[in-house]
Amino acid sequence: METETATRWLTDDEQTTWRAHLDVNRLLMHQLERDLQPFGLTLNDYEILVNLSESDDLRMRMSDLAAATLQSKSRLSHQITRMENAGLVRRENCESDRRGLFAVLTEHGIATMRRVAPHHVASVRRHFIDLMSPEALTGLRDSLLPVVDHLRGQRGKL
Amino acid sequence: METETATRWLTDDEQTTWRAHLDVNRLLMHQLERDLQPFGLTLNDYEILVNLSESDDLRMRMSDLAAATLQSKSRLSHQITRMENAGLVRRENCESDRRGLFAVLTEHGIATMRRVAPHHVASVRRHFIDLMSPEALTGLRDSLLPVVDHLRGQRGKL
Repeated sequence: METETATRWLTDDEQTTWRAHLDVNRLLMHQLERDLQPFGLTLNDYEILVNLSESDDLRMRMSDLAAATLQSKSRLSHQITRMENAGLVRRENCESDRRGLFAVLTEHGIATMRRVAPHHVASVRRHFIDLMSPEALTGLRDSLLPVVDHLRGQRGKL
Repeated sequence: METETATRWLTDDEQTTWRAHLDVNRLLMHQLERDLQPFGLTLNDYEILVNLSESDDLRMRMSDLAAATLQSKSRLSHQITRMENAGLVRRENCESDRRGLFAVLTEHGIATMRRVAPHHVASVRRHFIDLMSPEALTGLRDSLLPVVDHLRGQRGKL
């Protein structure tokens, strides 16, 4: 795809923005992980709990959950095994659907979400949302949504 | 630190911005990894090559490199071993400095950087920088830099 043209290196301004984006990513994921640690959850665990809790009947097909969390099926399978051992989810076969292996939120998973979610939201506010004005947040959203669309399109090309 | 106040859940707008940020993070890291794969490098490898190539004498103290890349020293040590085996870096002791175990870029590491950097920059442009107007990039930078400062401060509190 690349033609032999001169490399367009990043300008100083572009470089500053790019590094700020990378730094926020990494520092923020690190901070959110740290804030979840007292609850015995990783950020990956939390994300799976959120996905299941927002789904009909608190369950998702494993392949849909892998797509939603951008993980490979084998990596997700290991993750679900760990969460099953912690009593947060269970696997379930669906009789009417041969493709259907589901991950289902357990009572303990629901209770865990209820307990942890307020702390996680407070953490997201303290370290990200509340540091920006409403205008800055709107600007950020308008800048990022086209990037999300583009990247999802790329992913479709896999 | 948390007092028993009502949880301030995210508004719909805040939620949209937050998810856009998370999605861009993950999709973009995935895409950049994928674009580096033909060169046999991970994003972590690349970042270490960048840090070393920008340092005096193409070398960094291991502890400084761990801080710069936000990795634990033990994780970095494993990473450097892999990169040493690939001939990209070497470890070196500094006689005049008892604390000094350094990672040093090799000739092969330098050549690899020169070969890969144009492709990586093209990838960063195609999937992020060039999707935004200069004004959007400036807005993004102004929104993110205070978050970087805040998060670095939090990290100091470890």
